[in-house]
Amino acid sequence: MRLQRGIYLRHASTTPLDPRVRDRVIACLEEDPRDEGSLLADGRRARLILSEARERVALLIGAASDEVVFTSGGTEASNLALKGVALAPRRGGKERKRILVGATEPSPVLHPARSLKRLGFEVEEIPVGIDGLLDRGRLASMLDDRVLLVSTGLANVETGVIQEIPSISEEVRGSGAIFHCDASAAAAHLAIDVGALGVDLMSLSAHRMYGPRGAGALFVRKGIRLVPLIEGGVDESGLRGGMPPVALHSGFGEAAALAMVERASWAERSWAAGRRILEGLLAAIPDLVHNGAGAPRIEAMVNVTADDVEGEALLLDLGRAGIAASSGSSCFDEAGVPSHVLLAMGISPRRAQSSMLLSAGRDTTADDADRAVAAAAAAVARLRGLAVAGAR
Amino acid sequence: MRLQRGIYLRHASTTPLDPRVRDRVIACLEEDPRDEGSLLADGRRARLILSEARERVALLIGAASDEVVFTSGGTEASNLALKGVALAPRRGGKERKRILVGATEPSPVLHPARSLKRLGFEVEEIPVGIDGLLDRGRLASMLDDRVLLVSTGLANVETGVIQEIPSISEEVRGSGAIFHCDASAAAAHLAIDVGALGVDLMSLSAHRMYGPRGAGALFVRKGIRLVPLIEGGVDESGLRGGMPPVALHSGFGEAAALAMVERASWAERSWAAGRRILEGLLAAIPDLVHNGAGAPRIEAMVNVTADDVEGEALLLDLGRAGIAASSGSSCFDEAGVPSHVLLAMGISPRRAQSSMLLSAGRDTTADDADRAVAAAAAAVARLRGLAVAGAR
Repeated sequence: MRLQRGIYLRHASTTPLDPRVRDRVIACLEEDPRDEGSLLADGRRARLILSEARERVALLIGAASDEVVFTSGGTEASNLALKGVALAPRRGGKERKRILVGATEPSPVLHPARSLKRLGFEVEEIPVGIDGLLDRGRLASMLDDRVLLVSTGLANVETGVIQEIPSISEEVRGSGAIFHCDASAAAAHLAIDVGALGVDLMSLSAHRMYGPRGAGALFVRKGIRLVPLIEGGVDESGLRGGMPPVALHSGFGEAAALAMVERASWAERSWAAGRRILEGLLAAIPDLVHNGAGAPRIEAMVNVTADDVEGEALLLDLGRAGIAASSGSSCFDEAGVPSHVLLAMGISPRRAQSSMLLSAGRDTTADDADRAVAAAAAAVARLRGLAVAGAR
Repeated sequence: MRLQRGIYLRHASTTPLDPRVRDRVIACLEEDPRDEGSLLADGRRARLILSEARERVALLIGAASDEVVFTSGGTEASNLALKGVALAPRRGGKERKRILVGATEPSPVLHPARSLKRLGFEVEEIPVGIDGLLDRGRLASMLDDRVLLVSTGLANVETGVIQEIPSISEEVRGSGAIFHCDASAAAAHLAIDVGALGVDLMSLSAHRMYGPRGAGALFVRKGIRLVPLIEGGVDESGLRGGMPPVALHSGFGEAAALAMVERASWAERSWAAGRRILEGLLAAIPDLVHNGAGAPRIEAMVNVTADDVEGEALLLDLGRAGIAASSGSSCFDEAGVPSHVLLAMGISPRRAQSSMLLSAGRDTTADDADRAVAAAAAAVARLRGLAVAGAR
């Protein structure tokens, strides 16, 4: 029993590296093509690998390849989108100084927004309902001719709740504002065509779609003006300086090419596992609340609240049983801080701290799901027992 | 003859990946440890690899490991230093809004400085002499109690000229300003102890010291306040968000550990090759001017001007002969733009455009040097012949 392999249910945080992607990265490290600017074959080779990777990412999202700016990841992409647009010089017209961000956006969107507030921008959060869906009435009332930028993600990284981006983007862009969408949590699950979504800017992260950590991209629609965050050089259309990690971007391109062909199958398998986990948990754990219920969701992601159980303790119990779950934070668990996503959905701090996220991947099996459910049910029962004993 | 291997003389731009570093990166990609925040062994393993890498980089530069902030490279590190310090909220005292940068700094320093100018900072360039050394009299007169930050590199990326950082930093910090030093071009050649150099902030780039592209670090002395550039998360002391590319940082750590032991030998070999190239060129090409002559230099780097020769044409000729040289730009050759470094040294635009940089590495042989000299001499003779014929 002790020797069973661990079960990884943190795919929303980062996915395992696809072996084909890994081999691609390794082949590029072994070839070690150097230096874009070179007139030798070596330099042309590096340039070729990079442009092929860019083409593959562009193809996945239905963009032109010169609309794809490679970054060190999704976090940098979102920072570039927000700060790059806000700090770009604008000509004429009414000055737009308002920035609206979804209240359940992850920290790579919320934190730059807060920094921009310090720099004199008016930053406001767009509220969500109990189901996690954006309050469209409130959004409509917030949009005016002073709004510069609106940022809402396609799928939430803690609940999987899917926003209705095509209609949101239409409304936002109709008001004259620029629309940014963080699609990094969605890329392994949903179609992310920039035309169909109607986005001006879109963040992608390779390591959430079975690609390498350290690579990502920002889609920048032609005509959208922004300034670079990391400056120094003429590469990436002048929007990102520094010597590019060709091996990682090559792996990102490979992951994008795989997603083109296999995404539907990845989603089918991971959603089936997620549904099995959700149904199992609801059946096994009394009074369990499913967060995001009722909204369209990435069903591979299961966010639940078990009253009277400390989330941290639950994760520890699961860890001892070989199950890697998450307290809900997108990248790093911030110990003791209730999820801002759940709070924004109207869940009390105490209940938010009694929550956990199990996120399945393409290789999560029915057996994995069943074992995770059994372990979670046992842990909740044990911890509730302790709570009752403690209260006596 | 045609089948001879190419000779790579662009080490100042990027170095080949050390096979031991490559194997380390590959081993980490194959292991694929995930997710810092996990309570499982996997997550602890990722954390352990990252902290070991940080310790090794810290050891190389004589810093505490919590003074090392991992970034996606030297470019990001310098952007973080300049923008991070400039945009950090300051308490009380006289407001410091002046930023001084060396006129020969590379674009990852100059470009952020220009952006800060647009945001209301007074940005001034510190002039250099014909030898490329900072004009210390001018620096002294520029330093006052409104200077927030001064940035000058340890070794110039186009000429190899080494600034006298310990004395510069003492003067700058004595005036109450913060001192940033880009040491990325120096790391494979010189000791870069942050104590001996007296720096507050120092940029490092893995791919200029036989490490991987896509990894770098900013040393941040305890007590120096700055805000993150890429926000979202609590990692890297809150100074850099995003899922870290553990494999690359692990490779960076390996490169740092190798540099600890082997740097002197790397420098000895690459400087010997550089000296041989310089002596050969001066003997073979009439009226050749050596840029940076007279100053302490990284002698692996040879920057020369051959009057009446178009630098681009020279590089093409060298490329045909299998020699990868550079027009002098640090990362990417900006076609047709004369080097700002040479211009700042008082060289005319026309002569600056007749310049090239040959930078040797630890594996450049005497034979490589001789072949490069022969090819350069032949190319200059041919092009000068064309120029004379054209002028007739």
